[in-house]
Amino acid sequence: MPFVDIDKESLPVISGFRFAGVAAGIKKNGRPDLGLIVADEGTRGAAVLTTNLVRAAPVELVEKRMKGKGVRALLVNAGNANACTGKPGMQAAIATTRALATKLGLKADEVWPASTGVIGAVLPADKVIAGLEPALAQLSEGGAANFARAIMTTDQWPKVAVAEVPLGRGKVGRILGIAKGAGMIHPNMATTLGFVVTDLGASAAVLRKALKQAADVTFNALSVDGDTSTNDTIALLASGHAGDIGKGPLHARFVAALTEVLGALGESIVRDGEGARHVVKIEVVGTRTDQGASTIARTIATSPLVKTAIHGRDANWGRILAAAGRAGVDFDPAKARIAIGDVEIVKNGGPLGAAAEARAAKVMATERYDIRVTLGSGKGRAHYLTCDLGPDYVAVNANYRS
Amino acid sequence: MPFVDIDKESLPVISGFRFAGVAAGIKKNGRPDLGLIVADEGTRGAAVLTTNLVRAAPVELVEKRMKGKGVRALLVNAGNANACTGKPGMQAAIATTRALATKLGLKADEVWPASTGVIGAVLPADKVIAGLEPALAQLSEGGAANFARAIMTTDQWPKVAVAEVPLGRGKVGRILGIAKGAGMIHPNMATTLGFVVTDLGASAAVLRKALKQAADVTFNALSVDGDTSTNDTIALLASGHAGDIGKGPLHARFVAALTEVLGALGESIVRDGEGARHVVKIEVVGTRTDQGASTIARTIATSPLVKTAIHGRDANWGRILAAAGRAGVDFDPAKARIAIGDVEIVKNGGPLGAAAEARAAKVMATERYDIRVTLGSGKGRAHYLTCDLGPDYVAVNANYRS
Repeated sequence: MPFVDIDKESLPVISGFRFAGVAAGIKKNGRPDLGLIVADEGTRGAAVLTTNLVRAAPVELVEKRMKGKGVRALLVNAGNANACTGKPGMQAAIATTRALATKLGLKADEVWPASTGVIGAVLPADKVIAGLEPALAQLSEGGAANFARAIMTTDQWPKVAVAEVPLGRGKVGRILGIAKGAGMIHPNMATTLGFVVTDLGASAAVLRKALKQAADVTFNALSVDGDTSTNDTIALLASGHAGDIGKGPLHARFVAALTEVLGALGESIVRDGEGARHVVKIEVVGTRTDQGASTIARTIATSPLVKTAIHGRDANWGRILAAAGRAGVDFDPAKARIAIGDVEIVKNGGPLGAAAEARAAKVMATERYDIRVTLGSGKGRAHYLTCDLGPDYVAVNANYRS
Repeated sequence: MPFVDIDKESLPVISGFRFAGVAAGIKKNGRPDLGLIVADEGTRGAAVLTTNLVRAAPVELVEKRMKGKGVRALLVNAGNANACTGKPGMQAAIATTRALATKLGLKADEVWPASTGVIGAVLPADKVIAGLEPALAQLSEGGAANFARAIMTTDQWPKVAVAEVPLGRGKVGRILGIAKGAGMIHPNMATTLGFVVTDLGASAAVLRKALKQAADVTFNALSVDGDTSTNDTIALLASGHAGDIGKGPLHARFVAALTEVLGALGESIVRDGEGARHVVKIEVVGTRTDQGASTIARTIATSPLVKTAIHGRDANWGRILAAAGRAGVDFDPAKARIAIGDVEIVKNGGPLGAAAEARAAKVMATERYDIRVTLGSGKGRAHYLTCDLGPDYVAVNANYRS
């Protein structure tokens, strides 16, 4: 597992990047809320942005700026999402990134912003700008942990993952990922942010494709509503100091390592779901297309009835099968099989009996397991990560103003 | 409101129909679990069935039999859904309806079955068949209340609604609807069954169209997952004793009255949601198409974050707007308006402030209110009925084996 507990382990230096995280007074509780990553000249970047029609100002800005030549800094704040804030919000996003660009001698387009927190309130540009000096003063190659803590909102722990990409002759390229997730179970209104830096290099187009490929099976296949917030952003920055990934086997190893990093961050986000006791991978195989499997996996993973059954450790195959059946994807129910962990509970569309379900319930007492749905209509396959829906979720979400 | 409290009010006779409800031992607790409606010769019928790919044996049978000439009896059981039961399940559905047909001197095709309850267990045909004699002995024109009680599962109260259709000269046609809903919030695995009888008459094709039209804005626009169970069935039987509805103004009045009846039953189902304290109509207007409005209304109505906010009486417009934004329907967020009851809280895509939200929170303390989302991109409109998501939902669904 590439996940790193930054309270106990140190982080590798990723050549070409410096990090900082300070308290700029955006959060009311005085905790760190402003994160900064500064990259060396020549760094290329790509981002995957929320598909929600309602997009925060920083998302609009990154979409525009990622068409530019390169990226030299990420300016990230927690405590305020700067979403649904109209022109004043956009002006604040522009003013803060411009102020940082000026201090660093960059073009404004080379600074990408990201925000998370309360929506509907304009980002306090003055506080962010006042926080730039302390952040710049703190910048260091070893400061990734500070950055990770500064972008947390309701997260219970910082989320950092690293992976190495072997380059031959004992040399390695490195990938470092930092994310903030949902304190709540759903990265829904709770924005998901992910920032990945690597000392390997590639063009923006290659980076974008690799990032999308890795995100599709990790960040885009987790949580629970299939929901996207107004602010979701994953950015990948590549300094190229350790060499270019090219198009050969190194490229494939890079994508695999990137997927590992995003996967570890994504799993940590799901595990951090408020009140979550179980992290469950829903695997669907045997549809005609991967897309069909993905739709069924997401429908099962986001079903409140399936999620409450996971909480109750109830091998309720009927809810799983009914969720699959309403996904709008064609399959033959009479061929359906369902297994929980290694325990098969449904075969030929019908139950295998109380003894099998009792064995399955034992699997469901564990913290992490798979539910596998086999449909026998083709070679399509996909998975989706979910967690249980317990009473704490309701308590948190009925009382917390996201 | 056409809803009738059958503990306090009596029901009108609908000429051409007799009802019964008995305990046949299908439910373990000994409560009534077998309902019977017998219709006079010449009765025509139509049904709207679940769109779930996984369909129970009785659903498959009704789909086939509604292509026949007419319908003379409905045989409905609670306690067993006869779903995911393969050939033995289909044999049980055929055997029980055939036994009733024989006793009544009908063709098997003239008997329509419906089942609700535990899934994965074959319907105990012997118990159903043994229950037919007592049910037939009890049949009466005034027995609709017995039928209503016999089809309940986790419902807290029986659901009956009536409406009259003026025919001129002081005469009226009558519509009587009986439903069972979800004790749980979602008619998901909790099957929704609805049975409507009328003394007016029409062809099966006309009935089918009228039923679909009425169901689309009532039963198909309520609850919360947009989920369909393996067993959902709404049937409409028309004896024609009070005359044909034709194609003129009477037809329109009939559809309106039918919609009223289904609307009252649907609202009662939502209100009966386990732990539900608020019934909320999500109205979306101003999309390019009605279909788009419907998709947005359903996405908002089924969002766990919106539903928990309703529970917490929190005028959380951000969750509403973000749910609208991820529905996959195009609109301009900068034109969006949101009102809770009469209180506008969002205009031009942004919040109107804390004072407005405080007033909206007072509306949210009431039991029944509307949330209206106005999008200014066209004339499309739709609504969806939902309820709040409270801790009881989780408790019930984590522990109850549906």
